[in-house]
Amino acid sequence: MSEPLDTIIIGAGTAGLAALREVRKRTSRFLIVNDGPWGTTCARVGCMPSKTLIEAANAFHRRHAFEEFGIRGGDALSADIPAVLQRVRALRDDFVAGVMKATDNLGHASISGRATLLGPGTVDIDGKVYQANSIVIATGSRPKVPEEWLAFGDRMLTTDTLFEQASLGPRIAVVGMGAIGVELSQALARLGLQVAAFSTGDTLAGLSDPGLNEELAALLKKDMVLHTGEPAELREVAGGIEVSSGPNRVVVDQVIAAMGRTPNIEHLGLETLGVPLDKRGLPQVDPKTLQVGNLRVFMPGDANTQVPLLHEAADEGHIAGMNAMADTPTRFQRRTPLAIVFCDPNIATVGQRLDDLDPACTVTGTVGFADQGRARAALYNHGRLLVHADKTTGRLLGAELCAPDGEHLAHLLALAIHRELTVQCLLGMPFYHPTLEEGLRTALRDVARQLPDGSASDLATCAGLGVPALD
Amino acid sequence: MSEPLDTIIIGAGTAGLAALREVRKRTSRFLIVNDGPWGTTCARVGCMPSKTLIEAANAFHRRHAFEEFGIRGGDALSADIPAVLQRVRALRDDFVAGVMKATDNLGHASISGRATLLGPGTVDIDGKVYQANSIVIATGSRPKVPEEWLAFGDRMLTTDTLFEQASLGPRIAVVGMGAIGVELSQALARLGLQVAAFSTGDTLAGLSDPGLNEELAALLKKDMVLHTGEPAELREVAGGIEVSSGPNRVVVDQVIAAMGRTPNIEHLGLETLGVPLDKRGLPQVDPKTLQVGNLRVFMPGDANTQVPLLHEAADEGHIAGMNAMADTPTRFQRRTPLAIVFCDPNIATVGQRLDDLDPACTVTGTVGFADQGRARAALYNHGRLLVHADKTTGRLLGAELCAPDGEHLAHLLALAIHRELTVQCLLGMPFYHPTLEEGLRTALRDVARQLPDGSASDLATCAGLGVPALD
Repeated sequence: MSEPLDTIIIGAGTAGLAALREVRKRTSRFLIVNDGPWGTTCARVGCMPSKTLIEAANAFHRRHAFEEFGIRGGDALSADIPAVLQRVRALRDDFVAGVMKATDNLGHASISGRATLLGPGTVDIDGKVYQANSIVIATGSRPKVPEEWLAFGDRMLTTDTLFEQASLGPRIAVVGMGAIGVELSQALARLGLQVAAFSTGDTLAGLSDPGLNEELAALLKKDMVLHTGEPAELREVAGGIEVSSGPNRVVVDQVIAAMGRTPNIEHLGLETLGVPLDKRGLPQVDPKTLQVGNLRVFMPGDANTQVPLLHEAADEGHIAGMNAMADTPTRFQRRTPLAIVFCDPNIATVGQRLDDLDPACTVTGTVGFADQGRARAALYNHGRLLVHADKTTGRLLGAELCAPDGEHLAHLLALAIHRELTVQCLLGMPFYHPTLEEGLRTALRDVARQLPDGSASDLATCAGLGVPALD
Repeated sequence: MSEPLDTIIIGAGTAGLAALREVRKRTSRFLIVNDGPWGTTCARVGCMPSKTLIEAANAFHRRHAFEEFGIRGGDALSADIPAVLQRVRALRDDFVAGVMKATDNLGHASISGRATLLGPGTVDIDGKVYQANSIVIATGSRPKVPEEWLAFGDRMLTTDTLFEQASLGPRIAVVGMGAIGVELSQALARLGLQVAAFSTGDTLAGLSDPGLNEELAALLKKDMVLHTGEPAELREVAGGIEVSSGPNRVVVDQVIAAMGRTPNIEHLGLETLGVPLDKRGLPQVDPKTLQVGNLRVFMPGDANTQVPLLHEAADEGHIAGMNAMADTPTRFQRRTPLAIVFCDPNIATVGQRLDDLDPACTVTGTVGFADQGRARAALYNHGRLLVHADKTTGRLLGAELCAPDGEHLAHLLALAIHRELTVQCLLGMPFYHPTLEEGLRTALRDVARQLPDGSASDLATCAGLGVPALD
């Protein structure tokens, strides 16, 4: 056997490709191996097709505002579900093609096949054994589906199969109301399908504030049937699949399981690494280095289950790729937490969550968008935003929102929290009129009033006029 | 005559009301006098009615994306112009009522009438003379219309009269393509009116980058006829008003003059203040104190013509109100410049403008949105964004954009510029996927590559994968 390779990357998803990018800058003695279809979860079955579906759904849903705007004929609009899905696939194919360029021209360095670890520096790929100085495990995740539900065959959908359907419904159940369940159930309902959604817990889309969660539940119920608080059970009945949850029963044509994702680690041979594995079979992975124990093995992305979000997977792959090629792993500062759910209004959590904060040291400011000037003009006047700050210093600690254009407000808050700004300092920036950012300002002023120097009058805390057209 | 008042505020617009708020905290010995209708320019004839019109127009315009999304029946939609205008007025009335609450219950302290200065501490209000220790002049502005065009009577519209119309067009000319002209011409064109727009110069909406200006012109021409580079001339012809500009001629039913605004200073008696007046009749006003010369006279808002934007007028009124009640005026730091035009894609300029920057010390990064992932999914993939940074330090200096959801990107950039952040530092924040903020990140990375440490590889400058679905 020849000299060991510098590194082997297992998995060509977002994390694997980010690692590949760093590895290629440093060596040509590497392999990247991928099992199943190439193209990332994001581009193939995740972020991109779901957002494409959501954009169509929200464009169609907007017709409900038409009469109030003075636009006639909205009743004649219809969503052509097969055409909507066809566009999702067309654009998806284009995004996948873009992603796959990252592994073009790799020649023998790129292998389709299943990798199994034989130890910290040895990998079996479909029967052939390779040695490498380091290994990057970036095998990603897949949707969870209870074993017994597989009996429903092609009527049991996940994000892996949903976008492949020629048509859908008309009766759909969505089981699980985390980020993906909330996004898909609302999008499909807004496209005119009859959607019933089920959540075992009462918390939707990962929200931590109970009031915000209640507000979201009420908004979702405008588009769909929503049952929370009991596990969903499925059984075959005449005419479809019956989904029951406590006393509630609904019969549907298809069920979407949106019950979270499970890491792709079976058959990977993690037990050969000689490090402790938890009950799910996962080793401990340092979030700052992505290193497994003290091994020259790195595990970025969904596979480590830590923060299964695209931008975090890309960061983790980037770190893993650099560390896989370094003599000593470098510890990297991770970014300010940011999670966005692309339902309408958008949901976002930024920085520390309510549960992480000590109520005795925290003040919270809020704004509702029902009466916010710009939101009213645009007929997007729903939702609420909360900002949490340190009671003594006014430093912004976290925010949670279910608000129109919330994805953008969340980025502004993420920058402020990333820079450790105080509420007073953030109030020093310009807020243009009339914008939804003025709503955020109202919440910041609400915090400022509760701080020790709350009455300080300077330009930065220039108080509003207290009237919706100007605030 | 009794003891002098503490202050007299002339004008109850945004600047006057912001001043009033500060004055009322400090004294009850004041007067606020307003000539003409109460309610601010913003609420009555400016920001709010225009944004309400724009939201209806963009909702209607979205139908052009319907077929591609898979939504059928868009051809049957129609804009009911009288109903659109009716909603604009209804919401406008509500915003005006909100604003007018600020002067409720003032009793004799609030006067409808025309104020004329008789000197730095003396004001005549409809024949009655008042003395005051200080005066706040916040008389605002009104649309400019060439004297001879008034002959066209009620077919010559401005923002003062546009929203009062029962209906419009169907043939409309918009003369002047600054912020207001661009917003209104596009909104009316998107509502189905035949719009011809004219600009004496080639610069639209105050853009300073020629490439961006060209891109905007091309986008606007999808909705309307646009002639630039020659002054517009009007004459009465059979069937309407003929607007000509160089070799171009169009006959319309109504003309909207959007040629800028002129301060309301005639008959105000500024000449009695004993300070030099410029050729427009305006005294010098210190932007940090709003003080006129060394007098106890303060002049905030549109009347001073410095930065005729609502958030600046509110700041100026706030400063003027405090300084009118102080022994010595305080100098206030003004906010980072931010201007937004609510056309689609939004236009914004943030921080220093291209003309203010020394090309030898500046690097510029750019991103186009035609191929940006989220913009494509949403069918909003138009426009471009530019960021300027110091060549040596990487500090963000300014940005200019014509981009989807640009109003939000502009706020993020405004915070970064306000905090004097470097491009590298801004790249350290999280950019969620898939968002338009990732487009901004592409432009930031474009700057970073041109900086001395452009090849630095750390999490903050974690390079993209170079594929649209992930960038």
